[in-house]
Order: sequence, then structure tokens, then C-alpha cells
Amino acid sequence: MRLAPRAITYTRNGQPADVLKVKTLNALPNLQSNDVKVKFLLSPLNPADINVIQGVYPAKARTITIDNEEYRLGGNEALAQVTEIGESVKDLSINDWVVMGASQSGTWRSSAVLPSKDLIKVESNALSKVHGATLSINPPTALRMLEDFVNLKSGDYIIQNGSNSAVGTAVIQIAKAMNIHTINLIRERETTEKTNQLVTELKNLGATHVLTNEEISQNSKQARESIKSWTQGKELKLALNCVGGKETTEIVKTLSEGAYLVTYGAMSKQPLTIPPGLHIFKNLQSVGFWMSRWYKDHTMDEKKTLISEIVKLIENGNVGI
Amino acid sequence: MRLAPRAITYTRNGQPADVLKVKTLNALPNLQSNDVKVKFLLSPLNPADINVIQGVYPAKARTITIDNEEYRLGGNEALAQVTEIGESVKDLSINDWVVMGASQSGTWRSSAVLPSKDLIKVESNALSKVHGATLSINPPTALRMLEDFVNLKSGDYIIQNGSNSAVGTAVIQIAKAMNIHTINLIRERETTEKTNQLVTELKNLGATHVLTNEEISQNSKQARESIKSWTQGKELKLALNCVGGKETTEIVKTLSEGAYLVTYGAMSKQPLTIPPGLHIFKNLQSVGFWMSRWYKDHTMDEKKTLISEIVKLIENGNVGI
Repeated sequence: MRLAPRAITYTRNGQPADVLKVKTLNALPNLQSNDVKVKFLLSPLNPADINVIQGVYPAKARTITIDNEEYRLGGNEALAQVTEIGESVKDLSINDWVVMGASQSGTWRSSAVLPSKDLIKVESNALSKVHGATLSINPPTALRMLEDFVNLKSGDYIIQNGSNSAVGTAVIQIAKAMNIHTINLIRERETTEKTNQLVTELKNLGATHVLTNEEISQNSKQARESIKSWTQGKELKLALNCVGGKETTEIVKTLSEGAYLVTYGAMSKQPLTIPPGLHIFKNLQSVGFWMSRWYKDHTMDEKKTLISEIVKLIENGNVGI
Repeated sequence: MRLAPRAITYTRNGQPADVLKVKTLNALPNLQSNDVKVKFLLSPLNPADINVIQGVYPAKARTITIDNEEYRLGGNEALAQVTEIGESVKDLSINDWVVMGASQSGTWRSSAVLPSKDLIKVESNALSKVHGATLSINPPTALRMLEDFVNLKSGDYIIQNGSNSAVGTAVIQIAKAMNIHTINLIRERETTEKTNQLVTELKNLGATHVLTNEEISQNSKQARESIKSWTQGKELKLALNCVGGKETTEIVKTLSEGAYLVTYGAMSKQPLTIPPGLHIFKNLQSVGFWMSRWYKDHTMDEKKTLISEIVKLIENGNVGI
């Protein structure tokens, strides 16, 4: 007997433990000609998923109606498998692996009917399910930020903070595959031993240099000197920021003329503080990146190309988990 | 008898009254084939000129040598008249009016020998000397910021602060000529009467709406509501900032998705503080503009086109002093 579809749902914003409920759905809607039925193989939990449930994230959850009541669906990322296709669907076949090409698809459920235009086929024989389930948000965020703002060449340097985050470690690995050197900021851990351990981990992933936020904020002159000695006069035109606050201001001061500060997170919950002279006289550009906007603004062909680039990086062993 | 050339010079950074000295020069250097000799008709004093003398501005003053001693020359902007041309100079003739196409030409002197590539011919029969002497920095800053970041269309809105500055009033006037509506921030004056007087002056120049920094910082919700009611749902995609600080953060919150914050000054001496979510989720781009960089990065043809556009705006009565 086939199990009824189930979903992790909520009806009001709040702390996940307070508001999330598993609901059994009566049945999936009928397939329209461009729809695809999928079963979810693995659906990760990203920090932003929690923010959506709390109601502090600009993306809105997808809703479904069960017994005339509206429920919001949790989950944004997933690996799913096609189980049925509408008569007009050309690009997908039964058993294909797909990832989500639209934001907030409500992936914390057992199965769903989704428009085929919101699904991106994953073509690979070598990918694990875990790889498949985590390849559509964090690694592409890293790749797009490395490619879309500054024309980096082999041997160039970039700087980032939050370097041990999922995106940060993807940046380290993808940059290494592009022969781009990375200067990586991390938070000091509770003990020097733990900090050193993290430094070693990041260097094993391919990090060129690692600095702590404390080093850069307590002795910014020394940190700037270190960075200068590492880059050997090479330009530093790209800073990736998911932290904000004082340390980010210090990072920005190390950048070359015409550099980009790309903000994709704000883990310190502190605003960005930018000395105006860096904009006026050094042509600093402070911009943002959001993977959800990228998916919204790009064509299916562009999405497929992106996902296949990520698949290739994983298959070649350049990007791990 | 021809007077010996004289120049306002200094040998060390400091307060202008302490360090500036008028020097009589022995003679001008001989004209090389691409050089032009000019006499300065009017040389304005811009606030940045003071900062150069104080040594707090990134641009470095030009130097000359008198009796084996090096002197720095003050002055960046000017209207000058050609008095002699080198044998290879094609674009300029004796008596032509020119403005400076290079930064820090040292304009606070009676005459100079300059490379012809650093001079832009001003073609007009209707221009006063005062217009000519002030057309190469502030009005072009306004025009470039209105045209180079956002594709504004007739009827669109922009917002700016420091609206009664030289650039701010040029923005009001040029925007009006382009049929762009302006929302203008000013500092409250000592009395309500004086504030009202300034509001009237700016409205007479063409300002669509005027708000005080105090109104926006003390009741930002009310100010945002006012702005919304003025724009009637139209997008607000360009903010021009020469102030910085808290009020600028409030302005940024009023902008539409994908907007530009263009910083060209920092009169409050406060840094820019930007909520990171505006970068990430609303695709805010925070950038800088510096007229000196524009001149450095553009060709003589582009500079000529820019100056002729400004001349036309002045001739048509769109931009006054």
C-alpha cells in the first residue's frame, strides 16, 4: 500500500519547535500537462529555513490547502526523484534526479506535484544523495560570487569572512580549483587548540591563508601588513561577507581600487559600516548576492549550466561536503 | 610691461591661512610642441581645495620649482584663456576659453604652461566668466550621477541629501530639465523661518519636494509615508549622498529594489551604515562617484561632450549659479 503524502507544515510564524506540525495530506493534486510528480529523497535544513519559519526572512513559504485550511510548507532545498510526468513535459523522465529551480518549494514533505519549469535535472552517475541534496544553494552561491563580480585570473587573491560556513568552505574549494588564492577570516574558538584545529581543517580544504576576526580587529595594522605580504602587491578586488560589523569594515580597508564587497549574510547581526572615502576615492562597490534572486532572474538553460558546473566540481573531487 | 607670473603656493600641509604664500615666478617654462600657454581668468575655491592643502584629500597637488625649491600649487578648477600654442596643437587657438580636463592643475596662478590634452575647449558665446569657471566640477558631477547609474525616465523620482550644496542645486536644476522629480534633504536651519526660506529657494530652483534631515531621523516612519505618497508607487532607484551618517541610512530604506546609493561626499564626517538585508534581499548597490576619476578614465572626446552638455544647460537657462 502506498503511504499518504506527509509534510512538515505550520500555520503561524514562531520558533520551529513551537509551530511545526507533521500533517498527512489527503492526496496530491492531479497532474496538469506541464507538471511533474516527485518524491523527495533528501531535504536539508539550511539556517534560512529557520528564519522563514520565524517570519524574519523576506521569502514567503509556499502554502497548501488541506481540508479547506491553509498550511505553510517548510524547506527550500532538496534532491527529489521524478515519479510521474505530465503529457507536455519534454525535459524530464521517470526516475530522473532533480533539484529545485524555484525558491521555497516546500521540500520538507514526502512527495509533491510541481511545475516542470521549477525543477532542474541533475545529470551524474557519480553523485551521492547527500551531494545531490546540497548542491543547489551553497556551492552555487560560492561559484556565482567568484565569477559574477570581478574578472578573477589564475593566481589572484580574494578575501572572505565566515570562512567555515557552508558557503565559505565551498568558496575555498572552488577558488582552489580555479587557482585563486583565498584569505579566510574565522571567529576565534574557545581555545587556541580549537582555533588551530579549524585553521588546519580549512587549509586542508585549500585555504591559502587564515586570519581570525580578533586578529584583524585588535591589530588591524598588523593584519593589513600580513595581507600585503601575502598578496605581494597583487590586487585584492573581491571580498565576500556573511558577517558584517567592525571586522568587515577592516576587511574593506584592505581592498584595492575598484573592488567589490559582496554581502550574502549578516551573521553578526551588525550593520555594514563603510568609510565613504572608500566609495568616493577607491571606487569600492558594496553589493549583495542572494541565490533566490539569481534563480528568479535566470533562464532554465542558465540554471542547468550552473548546476552542471557544480556537479562537475563535485565529481572531480573539487567540492566535498 | 608684462607682469611676472604669480601663484598661490605652499610647501607643507596645514591650515590655508598658515601655509599659503603668494610667490612670483621667474618665468614660465618654454612651450613644448604639444603645450599651451594660458592665462587664468577666474579660479574658484572649492571645499576640496582646502582639504588638499590640509593634506586630508587623496589627490596630490601639482608642484613647480622656483630657484631650486619645490612648491605645491593650489587650485583645481578654472576658466583660462589660451595665449600661445605649441606647434603640434591642433584643437586650440589663441583666445579660446578652456577648462581643466585634468585634476589638480594648480589653477590659483596668473598663467601656466599646460599640456593641450589636459585642457577642454569651451565653445559658447553666451557664457559669463563665472559660469565658465564653475562648469567643470559641480554641474558635471550632478549630470554624470543622474545619467550613469540608473536609466531614469521622464517622470521618475530621485532622492538626495545636502541638497543646497553646489552639486545638490545642480542636481535639482538638471533633474528638472530632464523632467525628473527630486526629493531633497536639507539640514534644519537655526530658525524655522530660515528653514522655510531655504525650502522656498530650492523649490524656486525646481526642487519637487524638500524634507529636513531632522524630519527623516526623528520620525522616519512618517517621512517614509510622505515619500510614498509623493512617488505614488513609482520606483525610487537613485539616492545621491554627500552627507553620510544616520539620515543616509534612513534614505536608503526608502529605495526600491535594485537601487543605487551614490556617495560623492561625507559632510557629516560619519561613515555610511547600511543594513545588510538591503544588499542581499533588495539588491541595493552602494557605490561612489568622484569627478577627478571620471576625468582620468575618459577620453578627450567624452570630456568635450560632457562640457558641451553643461554649456548647453547653462545657455538654455536650465543651470544657473
